[in-house]
Amino acid sequence: MSTSAQKLYEGKAKIVYATEKEQEYLTYFKDDATAFNAQKKGTIVGKGEINCTVSSALLKWLESKGIPTHFIDQPSSREMLVKAVKIIPLEVVVRNIAAGSLCKQTGLNQGEKLPFPLVEFYLKNDELGDPLLTRDRLSILNIIPSEQIEQLKQYALQINQHLQEFFQSCQITLVDFKLEFGFDSENNIILADEISPDTCRLWDELEQDKQKRVLDKDRFRQDLGKIESAYQEVQQRVLTQIEKLKNS
Amino acid sequence: MSTSAQKLYEGKAKIVYATEKEQEYLTYFKDDATAFNAQKKGTIVGKGEINCTVSSALLKWLESKGIPTHFIDQPSSREMLVKAVKIIPLEVVVRNIAAGSLCKQTGLNQGEKLPFPLVEFYLKNDELGDPLLTRDRLSILNIIPSEQIEQLKQYALQINQHLQEFFQSCQITLVDFKLEFGFDSENNIILADEISPDTCRLWDELEQDKQKRVLDKDRFRQDLGKIESAYQEVQQRVLTQIEKLKNS
Ligand SMILES: Nc1ncnc2c1ncn2[C@@H]1O[C@H](COP(=O)(O)OP(=O)(O)O)[C@@H](O)[C@H]1O
Ligand SMILES: Nc1ncnc2c1ncn2[C@@H]1O[C@H](COP(=O)(O)OP(=O)(O)O)[C@@H](O)[C@H]1O
Ligand SMILES: [Mg+2]
Ligand SMILES: [Mg+2]
Repeated sequence: MSTSAQKLYEGKAKIVYATEKEQEYLTYFKDDATAFNAQKKGTIVGKGEINCTVSSALLKWLESKGIPTHFIDQPSSREMLVKAVKIIPLEVVVRNIAAGSLCKQTGLNQGEKLPFPLVEFYLKNDELGDPLLTRDRLSILNIIPSEQIEQLKQYALQINQHLQEFFQSCQITLVDFKLEFGFDSENNIILADEISPDTCRLWDELEQDKQKRVLDKDRFRQDLGKIESAYQEVQQRVLTQIEKLKNS
Repeated sequence: MSTSAQKLYEGKAKIVYATEKEQEYLTYFKDDATAFNAQKKGTIVGKGEINCTVSSALLKWLESKGIPTHFIDQPSSREMLVKAVKIIPLEVVVRNIAAGSLCKQTGLNQGEKLPFPLVEFYLKNDELGDPLLTRDRLSILNIIPSEQIEQLKQYALQINQHLQEFFQSCQITLVDFKLEFGFDSENNIILADEISPDTCRLWDELEQDKQKRVLDKDRFRQDLGKIESAYQEVQQRVLTQIEKLKNS
């Protein structure tokens, strides 16, 4: 990364740099880890490389399935070249199995299979603590028109279908995940940000133990230890599966 | 209240007693006040009488407008005789103007007029902190069928129309309010619980000052003082208006 590149934004997990092309950004993946709206902070050694590599592989694969994404290239282990987008300030969460805040808020049991994939919209606003939004609140906040909300939901469901299938072949259960979308230079909605053990809940199907099976940021949130090796395991299985698909 | 009556439930603001008739309960309105999920506790002298009297007047009036309610009679100043219902564990909140948790969670400004009356469903569960529910969460929790959710919403909007009109003629702005519904002995959904300065946000239209205009439990929540006189003012205006309507 040339040090002269202009830093546009430094977030909790990544840094976004301008490039020579106005319509392209370079994102740099850090080892910094945060949880609970950044109240908990730490470092996961090697996380930046893993999340960049896993995200690049998954975004490229989704693109091949017809999902428009911001992914252009992975020029180095921690850097992803992406289409510059205007981020829609919503976290689009898809849940297949009850976990995390859904359980805390509703009393549903951790691990309970949901009767349908639940697509939820949270306001991407750290100050407000990323609150859950109902459709009516979305409409009142007037972030994007309701047809575009519907489009996000349809993309989220399609991505869930693809990712569930993919992770299943890695013998990993996709519990839930968070997506971010943005408008590209032609004002099309495309998938942005990352898809990684930081943004997905992933359970190892080869492991029955409820703590040992966790392969994602919950190891950090809940101080379960062995975080690095869990992230490595995800990377290894994802890359192996991508290779298999290439050769088939 | 005969001391031999069986106490069925003591809540934060009321006590529910059985009566000789299986299908009727007597509710007793206490002076106890709580806020923030009962973390804040206190007493508002005379509140029980006022809330019982205001609720009785409003429920009776709504009944005359065609809204089915649990109200039967007000046998004494703090007692309301009601139809026994199986309470639906939802708090149905109608908002005309942004205030309270809506502002904290969305960043909308206190006092901002909403583009449409917002009907929201919260799980009535003190342990979980009465969480806001999306339609999908409602559907997954499977509390009542979605057609009945729709019926609650329609009742809530009708009640809002009636109450807005009523309070306007009292020169009070109905900012928002909370309703509870239940199933009567014939399994019909009817309006239950209370409608009072404990369960509504009411702003005095004769007062411009943002703190002075508050005529509801926010005086208690925010330690604004003069709580008793605010509640009395509401009672006086409501009863005066009811009298006027009777004579017209
Ligand atoms: N293609 C893109 N164009 C512009 N911004 C993006 C793109 N992809 C992701 N971003 C944004 O870059 C930031 C990534 O950094 P991150 O550390 O994850 O931030 P945050 O702490 O806000 O989650 C986020 O604000 C994300 O929305
Ligand atoms: N007609 C009714 N039949 C049965 N229960 C009722 C009726 N109306 C209200 N209730 C219930 O009685 C209780 C009233 O007491 P309250 O002090 O307001 O309780 P809470 O602390 O649960 O809000 C509530 O649980 C309410 O749902
Ligand atoms: Mg982020
Ligand atoms: Mg109550």
